[in-house]
Order: sequence, then C-alpha cells, then structure tokens
Amino acid sequence: MVVILKNNATDDQIDNVKKHLEDYGFQIHESRGVQKTILGAIGVQPDFDTRKIRILDGVAEVYRVTAPYKLAGRDFKSDNSIIKIKDVEIGGNEIVLMSGPCSIESEEQIFKLAEIVSRSGSKILRGGAFKPRTSPYSFQGMGEEGLKLMRAAADQYGLLVITEVMQISELDVIGKYADIYQLGARNMQNFALLKELGNVKIPVMIKRGLAATIEELLMSAEYVLANGNSDVILCERGIRTFEKYTRNTFDLSAIPVIHKRSHLPIIADPSHATGIRDQVPPMARAAVAAGADGLMIEIHHDPEHAMSDGPQALLPEVFIELVKELRTIAQAIHRNL
Amino acid sequence: MVVILKNNATDDQIDNVKKHLEDYGFQIHESRGVQKTILGAIGVQPDFDTRKIRILDGVAEVYRVTAPYKLAGRDFKSDNSIIKIKDVEIGGNEIVLMSGPCSIESEEQIFKLAEIVSRSGSKILRGGAFKPRTSPYSFQGMGEEGLKLMRAAADQYGLLVITEVMQISELDVIGKYADIYQLGARNMQNFALLKELGNVKIPVMIKRGLAATIEELLMSAEYVLANGNSDVILCERGIRTFEKYTRNTFDLSAIPVIHKRSHLPIIADPSHATGIRDQVPPMARAAVAAGADGLMIEIHHDPEHAMSDGPQALLPEVFIELVKELRTIAQAIHRNL
Amino acid sequence: MVVILKNNATDDQIDNVKKHLEDYGFQIHESRGVQKTILGAIGVQPDFDTRKIRILDGVAEVYRVTAPYKLAGRDFKSDNSIIKIKDVEIGGNEIVLMSGPCSIESEEQIFKLAEIVSRSGSKILRGGAFKPRTSPYSFQGMGEEGLKLMRAAADQYGLLVITEVMQISELDVIGKYADIYQLGARNMQNFALLKELGNVKIPVMIKRGLAATIEELLMSAEYVLANGNSDVILCERGIRTFEKYTRNTFDLSAIPVIHKRSHLPIIADPSHATGIRDQVPPMARAAVAAGADGLMIEIHHDPEHAMSDGPQALLPEVFIELVKELRTIAQAIHRNL
Amino acid sequence: MVVILKNNATDDQIDNVKKHLEDYGFQIHESRGVQKTILGAIGVQPDFDTRKIRILDGVAEVYRVTAPYKLAGRDFKSDNSIIKIKDVEIGGNEIVLMSGPCSIESEEQIFKLAEIVSRSGSKILRGGAFKPRTSPYSFQGMGEEGLKLMRAAADQYGLLVITEVMQISELDVIGKYADIYQLGARNMQNFALLKELGNVKIPVMIKRGLAATIEELLMSAEYVLANGNSDVILCERGIRTFEKYTRNTFDLSAIPVIHKRSHLPIIADPSHATGIRDQVPPMARAAVAAGADGLMIEIHHDPEHAMSDGPQALLPEVFIELVKELRTIAQAIHRNL
Repeated sequence: MVVILKNNATDDQIDNVKKHLEDYGFQIHESRGVQKTILGAIGVQPDFDTRKIRILDGVAEVYRVTAPYKLAGRDFKSDNSIIKIKDVEIGGNEIVLMSGPCSIESEEQIFKLAEIVSRSGSKILRGGAFKPRTSPYSFQGMGEEGLKLMRAAADQYGLLVITEVMQISELDVIGKYADIYQLGARNMQNFALLKELGNVKIPVMIKRGLAATIEELLMSAEYVLANGNSDVILCERGIRTFEKYTRNTFDLSAIPVIHKRSHLPIIADPSHATGIRDQVPPMARAAVAAGADGLMIEIHHDPEHAMSDGPQALLPEVFIELVKELRTIAQAIHRNL
Repeated sequence: MVVILKNNATDDQIDNVKKHLEDYGFQIHESRGVQKTILGAIGVQPDFDTRKIRILDGVAEVYRVTAPYKLAGRDFKSDNSIIKIKDVEIGGNEIVLMSGPCSIESEEQIFKLAEIVSRSGSKILRGGAFKPRTSPYSFQGMGEEGLKLMRAAADQYGLLVITEVMQISELDVIGKYADIYQLGARNMQNFALLKELGNVKIPVMIKRGLAATIEELLMSAEYVLANGNSDVILCERGIRTFEKYTRNTFDLSAIPVIHKRSHLPIIADPSHATGIRDQVPPMARAAVAAGADGLMIEIHHDPEHAMSDGPQALLPEVFIELVKELRTIAQAIHRNL
Repeated sequence: MVVILKNNATDDQIDNVKKHLEDYGFQIHESRGVQKTILGAIGVQPDFDTRKIRILDGVAEVYRVTAPYKLAGRDFKSDNSIIKIKDVEIGGNEIVLMSGPCSIESEEQIFKLAEIVSRSGSKILRGGAFKPRTSPYSFQGMGEEGLKLMRAAADQYGLLVITEVMQISELDVIGKYADIYQLGARNMQNFALLKELGNVKIPVMIKRGLAATIEELLMSAEYVLANGNSDVILCERGIRTFEKYTRNTFDLSAIPVIHKRSHLPIIADPSHATGIRDQVPPMARAAVAAGADGLMIEIHHDPEHAMSDGPQALLPEVFIELVKELRTIAQAIHRNL
Repeated sequence: MVVILKNNATDDQIDNVKKHLEDYGFQIHESRGVQKTILGAIGVQPDFDTRKIRILDGVAEVYRVTAPYKLAGRDFKSDNSIIKIKDVEIGGNEIVLMSGPCSIESEEQIFKLAEIVSRSGSKILRGGAFKPRTSPYSFQGMGEEGLKLMRAAADQYGLLVITEVMQISELDVIGKYADIYQLGARNMQNFALLKELGNVKIPVMIKRGLAATIEELLMSAEYVLANGNSDVILCERGIRTFEKYTRNTFDLSAIPVIHKRSHLPIIADPSHATGIRDQVPPMARAAVAAGADGLMIEIHHDPEHAMSDGPQALLPEVFIELVKELRTIAQAIHRNL
C-alpha cells in the first residue's frame, strides 16, 4: 500500500498515519520531497480495506500495491493453466468450441444438435437444464430429465458436456451428468456457491457479470481456487454500457488483459454478448483474432420454435461455415481450431 | 407489442410477420401510412421474446407494450403498499430509519450500537451475520451466534431486526431471529433464492444490483410477489458508472421513478452508495428530499477497529445530529421521521 | 508518482526504471520490502504521462500522486471561491436560482417568464439564443435577436443573464448581452473554446459532460483559470449510464466530492438531468439537500408550444411552490435561498 | 411514432392525445385491444420531441418509429459509400491503413515514420499538428509548421494525409495540407464545427465520442451530410465504461451494427481504444476480423521520447509484422489489405 500525504499535512498527522499503519502490521518506508510525503506500507494483507487509512487526517490518496487475487494471478503461476478433461485441453494452443442450444428441449432436439456440434469439430456440447430467467413467468428448463438427454447425446457423439448450475442444491445432480459446471453471469458473485464450487472435482467456467470488472472476475476465480479446485475457466460474455443498439458491449479487450494478468484460460461467448444472430459471426471471428482460448456459441436447427434465446442461435449451416472461417483466422495467429 | 416494418418491406414479408404473430397468439391491428406500416400485436404474453419478431425479414423495430412486471406495478395496485411489522410501517408517511453496524462483532458492540440506534429514533437495527465478501480471505461474519446477539440487543431496545441472507440454506436459521430478510445487491438476480423468498412469511428488502436497471429490480420483486410473499421493500444503494472519485453513483432519480411505476416502498442506503463517511450526511439528506421511504445507515462507535466497512460508518454523535437535520427536511416535504 | 515494481523484477530492470525517472527529471525515493520494491518519484510535472513508466519491463503499476489540476484545487485555495456579479454572489452561503426557458422564443415569452423568475426570488435569467441540437433539422435558436430580448427583459426585472456560447466566433456578440457565459455539456472538452473563455472578463459556468469524470470537469475549469479568468462556476447536469427509465443519471454525489476537492461553486441542473417535468421537483430538493450552491431550472408558461424541451419545463405555479419548499430545506442545512 | 395508452386511460384522455397528435401534423391509426389502446402516428417529423406526447395524461409509453438520421442511413442509400481520394478507396473491399505518429514533432521524425508507413503498405499518413489535450499544461502541437512537414513527407512517399481539426478557424490552414479532416472524439458533438465541415470539399472522418451512442455518431455524420459534404467516414475508438484495467472499452460490436444501419465506412482505432502498446496488435486483428473498413494505428521509432502518447505507439518492426497478420485475416474474410 502507498499512502500519499497532503501537501499541508502536519508532522502530527503524519505520525498518526504511521502509527496506524504499524498497528495494522505494516512495515513503513518514508519518502519526503519538498512538497510531498509518501509512505510505502509493506506487508501481506491482500484484503486490507485501504479506506481505513484514506479517512485519516492529512491523507490525500491511498493506493493498493498488490492485486487482491493471488492464486489467479500470473505472479503465482507464470505458465498458462491448461485444463484437461478426458482428451480435451482448454487453455493450450488449440482453440476449443463449445456449442449447442440455449436450453435442452427434447430428445430429438438435443441429439440432432449434438450431431451438428460434432460435425463442426466442436468438442463440447452446451445446453441448459436449469435456466436463470429474468421473468418468473418464463420457461425454467427441463431439469434432470434434460441433463440425462444431453449426457446421452454427448456420449453418442463423443462430446463433453457443459451446463449451468444455479444453486448449491443442484451441484450433486448436475455433477452426475456434466464435465464442466458453468456459473452464470448473474451468479458471478454468489459467494456461497463459489465456495462450494471450490470443493468439487469438476472444472468450473465462470462467466463475467454484466457489470463486473476484470478484477472482480479474477476474485471470483480466486474463491474457487482458494477452496481447492484449480480447474477454473473464465468467460467474457458482454458487459453493460450506455449503448442501446446492442444488447451488451462485447469487451474483447478483456482477453489480452486477462492473459497478461492471469494464467487461466478465457473463453468468449458472442451469442450472449450480442443477443442477435446476425452479429454472432463477426464477433466470433473478432474473439478468435483477439486471442480467446475458446468460443461458446448457441445453435439451433429450428430457432423460431426454440424455448429460449432462439433469435441469437445460429442456424447449423451458418455455424458450419463460420467454423471454417475461424479455422483460417486461428492459423493466421499460429493457433489450431 | 408494436412492430414497425421497414419502408421497403414487401407484401410477402408483411404477411409473413403477421402469420408469425398469429401463430404466437397475438391479435393484430394494422396501420398503413404512405411510407410506414405498423402492426399492433395485442395479447397477454408478458415474457414474449420480442427478438423473435425482430429477426424476421422486413422488420425495422419491435417495441414491447406492456411492462414485464405485473404484480410490482402501479397498474396492478394504485395505492402505496405499506409493509407493517409489529408497530412499524414501511411505505407510509413516516420515513423509517434502519441503522447499525456493517457486521455484528461482539455482544458489547451490538448492545452499545443498539442503544444509540434506539436513542436516535431509528426503529430498525441492521447488522450482518453472514457477510458477502469480494475476497475469500476477508472476515465472513459471526453466523448464528451473531444473530442471537443482535436479536437480544434489539429486544432490549424495542427494535426490529434486518439482516442479510445469502443462500437458501440460511433462510431457516435467519428466520428465527430476523424481522426482515435483506437480499444483497450481488444476489439481486439469484433467482433460486428469490423464489424461496416468495415462500416465506417474513418481509424482504431487495437491494438493487450495481448494474441492475430499475426494471430488473422490479422484476426481482416480481419473483418474490409471484411466489406469494407480498411484503417486498426495494433499496437503492448506488450503481456502477465510469466515475472514479466515488465508489458508486447514488442514483437518487430512481426514487421518484420507482414511486411512479410501482407501489412498493423504496429505501435509500447512502453508506454503501458513497462508501466513505464524509459523504453520508449530504447524501442522506438528499435521499430524504428526493422522497425515499426510509434510510439504511451504518454506524459504529469505534470504526477504526470495525471488522468491515469501518470507513463508511458514521460516528454516533454525527449520526444523532444528522437525524435531526433529516427530520427538518422531512417536515419540509410534509412527511414524518 | 509512485512506481510499484513486480515481485520478480530484476535489479537491472529496477535500475532501468530509475534511470528513466531521473531522465524525466524526477527525484527518487526507494523502498525495498521482502517482496515489493516501491519507488517514490517526486517532482513537479502535473501532466506527465504515467504510461511512459508503466510500459517499462519490471513495472507492475504506476500511480500519479498529484492531481492533474492545480488552480482549481483546494490545495491551491482553501476558501470557497465566491463569484460576485453586480449584487449577486455565487458560491457563498446563499443558494442561487437560475431559471427561465430553454430557448428564447419571442418578446412576449421572455418578458412573461422574466416576471415569473423575478417573482420566484430567482436572481438570474437563463435562456438559449444559440442552441446546440443533436439533429441538424431542429430549431437552432433566435441568435442575437433573442439575446437583445432577454437582456431587455432581465433589465426590466433586475435579473442577471446567463446564456450558452457554442463557438469562439459568438463570444463577442454574446458578451454584449450576458453576465455569465454557459459552456454546454457537449463542449466541456472543446479546448479551443475553453482557452478563449480564459481570456474574457465575464464569468463562465461549465456544464459537466455526459460522460466526463469529475476530474475532467476540474481540468476544463483549469483551462479557463490557467488562461486568466478566475470566475469559474461548475454545473452537474446528469451523466450517462446504463439505466433506461431515466434520460440521465443525476450524479448528486458529485456535489460533496467537488466541494471537498475544489474551491469553485457547483450548481445543479435537475431539468436536464431528468428531462421530464415530474422528476424536477424531487431532484431539485435533493440537490439543495446535497449542498448545491445553486440550481438551474427551466420553466415555461406554455410548455406544449415551447420551441425546445417543453416537456422538462416546470409550469410557473409549480415552480413558485417548489421554491418555497427549497427555502425550507436550505434552512435545515443552515443556508439561505 | 407509436403511442401506447395506459390500461386505465379514459376516452377523454385518448381524445386529448389524438387531438395533440393532429395538431402536431400526424396522421393517426388507432388499435384498440381489450386492455390496450395503441395509436400509430404517422408523418415526417424526424426530430419531433416524443416527450411532448409522453407527458400527456393517460399515456404509458411513446416510441419513435423512424431513425432520427436520414442521409446517413441504409434506407436512404443501400449500397456502401466508397470515399475516393486520389487512388485510395475507403469503404470498398480493400481494408485501408492509416498510420503514423500521434504528434508531428520534427522533420526527421515525420520523414522517418512516413517511410515506415509506406513500407508497411499503409496508404494514409496520420499525425497531429493541433492537439486536443486534457491538460492546459501539455504539448499543444506544432501547428502549421507541422502540417507543412507532414505534407512534404507524405508527398515523398506517395501517401495521403489525415490530421485533426479542432476549431472552425483552423479549417482553411489545415485544408491546404490535408486530404482528410479528422474530427476528434471530444468534438463529435461540436455542432458549429460539424456544420462547417459540411461546407468543405474535403472528406471528414468523425471519431465516436467516449460516451456517444452509435445513433449520436450517425447524427453527427448527418450534420455534415445535410450541409452538403457526402464524404464522411466514421471511426470507433473506444467508449467509456466502468472497467478500470483498460483505458477505454473498444466497442467492436459497433462495426457490424453500423454496417447494418449505415452505408458509411467505419474505421477502427485500436491505439486510442486500448492506450497501451501491448494490446494494440490483438485488438487490431480483432477489428479486421469484425469487419472494419480500415485501421488507424499510431507508430513511433522512438516512443520513449515521443511528445505525446508514446506508450501506445507501436515500434516499426512490430507494426510491419502486424500488418502481415492482418493481411491473412483479411483474406480469411475475403477482403484485401
């Protein structure tokens, strides 16, 4: 922590600040210029509330020196984390595709889509069985019945399964069928659930909240890591801004920033980021070009009758074409897909 | 729903849109101008995904006509809802104060603060026993032991108790001690928890998420109302913006907007909105002047040693003075406090 | 400036950083802890681009120590600046009202409104003659003819005149009629115009841009102050956020923050902040309670036929009533109005 | 315009709304459902202030039906606009590169950089002579002397020149040397300057303001188009959000959205969007993949001693390599570069 004193801070005020820092366990280094006094406060208290010093008389500003996350940071682990699940590696040189419907709707639907997913070269089948819905009146998902169908379809086509968990009580049942738990954007700071996800043996993909900073996303990862589960994947899916012509603003800058600060893989979800079919292909291409370790893309063979999010689902033939383009872009940056 | 066709939409396209609307169960009214064709689609489907129509060929824009919430709206109930708990009324002419520490820390602390709360004229004691913390390394609260102490302190001084619930499994234990459940900002869209809060017999105060729109706040209220609990209180506690000199931006405009659109009471929390002691009094005064039905304010007799959020806690004597000012402002707008 | 080195920074990297700092003219104080090295770089370069150090190898973070503004800050002048214009003082204990129409439309209109303004106790008449409009097809104002009418109406009722200047070439003509230049939100960072406003002898009110930080607002004030005009007034008029039920988010927290950091007076404009008549009175009350040094409020006797912004203009009788309430709130915080 | 009446609107209220619409010149189509009445108001008033209807009794919501821009929209011109300047086409199949220093600093500097620009395959030389600076104490540019040097360097290497204009009085002098005027983000809504840019014969590139919506960007283009200059280029350069790890959020979603709504070319500026050298290459790649019609990239051979924005300038060798990657990505989406 660095403490900047006011230009007119008195010696008594400076002494008082130093006394507080010592009481809180910090070691102090003092720099006095003609106008400014700066105190470097060194000590390992990652969650120290810097406002405790900021409110003292004579203090102008206080800056935290260490990132609040530790296990999620590059300082802790300099090599990229590669999450291995069966024969799939997430976070390596290969860009991974996760695709499938928004919601599992029927046996016929999920098998038909699993076949397309497999044909496209995707290795992971996505699909929701327990759905978070803004409205209490909307379709809430097929539940365990849907999970069974998705597992069967995935097994038939040699795919992994990723699906969303919304509450602690669902962890066990979902754990029977899924290879990766997905934590939704609205639950990114559901700390109780994050802790439990640290106690499971299944990898977790955490979606960035609509107004979550990158730092907060890394702190949510820290919750899982600190509780013992080191298989954490991050996902950028759009943030909320003032712009009205788009549903969300897809923050692709987050990808290189996260790669610089963290060793964890980062997936991009252009379907939720844009919310409308037309914009998914250009944004999927941009995400690969920006360095994403994978993409999550919603598809549907009959989007007009989809139970949820049909308008953002790609048609199978459009998806298959898109994957070819993505492959060329991946090569341009020396990655596989 | 209103559907605006493109200027150059063909008759076939318009017919196709109309067919889709009919299939989805809407009744159609068509207006044709020289340049524009507009379709009014009338029917009761509050959660209809308007993107289903927006992606059809020939469609320029689609607007939802009905608010997505129903039970939370003024259309459903034109009089203000008044939540009665023992002898306290929230949402009536009287402005209600909820005050106390961020976290319950010890028997001595909570009894000392309960006395100050009572002396100030506040009727509700606030305090956290289960704490949502951004960092897994931070103090996580005293748990049930804290609840017992807070209940005893509240009873001694004739106060009600409000405290935060973070997960479904805590509902029962908190229900034994609390008069109002508080749902935190980060859990505002924890839909599983919202549903359960609809099944309890205890009032619920929902805090607006950092990036939640007013409409989403009302939708979260709708979850609780639709599941059978009609005692819902809303709370504005600051939203996230680009401004860096403040922790959050306190959106006081939300108060008259919510009063216009909903019958539910709205509380303001200047402590969390500003995050720093100095700014709490002016923002508390502004919230009362803007029409808030109550204030939630954090206080502490020894904030330097508080376990959490000490820097935003008011000192007791400052708080007592502030309440006097608030009373005068309340009178200026013909309300009591 | 404070430079935090990475945990694994090498001695060569640290030496290189120090060499750069010296070359840029900084004096260095070094603090070495077990894990962290911190460099305090002291020297007077308010506009130094800290990214120059941030991109060097081994650097983790860089923080600016001094505010980028100087003349606008409390460090430079600890007493409140009071702008005196004829017998009106802005920034003193009295809260000043600026009111009138959005646009000057006719002799009859501006005289009628000047009478109401005067009757309400407002001392300053507002009104636009040169109008910034988002659309090139909208009414662009009456120009100098409007200024003449406003001046005559103001003189008849003993009022000061404030009106907007949009470009350098208008400074002279507006200067013949106005007592205060208003710089609009969209021009807050029109640096060429800001410089010229530093060369005039007339006070300037700078409106905060829709996405301007408080720091940027103070930097715009600095432009005017640094060029020689010390009569600068600030104005909060709402910022842009994700919320859709309001036109802007009225950032009342800016008022105490500006009072803490700057000696300049700060006016609040609830008419533009909310954009709709119903919300002006509660937000005007809140602004006074939050400590604003004045209010700018639009009124119109026939808003249905106003040439611009009629829907946000208060009716005269509502305005007169509102001023009475504001007076009581001002007294509650020991100010006059 | 579409007017939604409240469920409980009376016949008198509905009649009053209809009378107002007629008075304002609209033709009305009425749809009455069991609960809802909807009025379609048809007529050509692109800048009608919909709040005039929204404040009438009985009105629930009002939606504008036509976009507020006309000449900038796809409805007006369905083919892409291609801006031809000498032998360069902007907006065609070829992706155009604009590169060079932030500021022109000396003859040696601009000639050295022009050579690199030319060697990379860029066709347009960028560089600032009149600089908008947040601080009045920062380097403000070389002025006309800089323009002369840039023109000479561009001519030697067969390049076009783009440079920023900050005020009307600079239009003539800049017009002597530049092939494209650049309007900076902070001046995007400088309406006086926009009008004058409509009267010149030189193409204009308008940069999106930090908090400008896409619609506002198109409205600024409309100002120029409506005044007679049809050679308008748009530029996305990052918007302001809550995220703190990046200087701006690069809104690449704006690219497909603008291509859908407008016929004007859209350039992306990853240098200003990210503000830091490391992030420019991934974001440049992403912009091409998202469909940008060109890129503006800052380069410098000695960024440590650059007069402005050195930390975001690419080194020449990094830039040359980047252009090769961009070329491969362009091919993947069937474009040239």
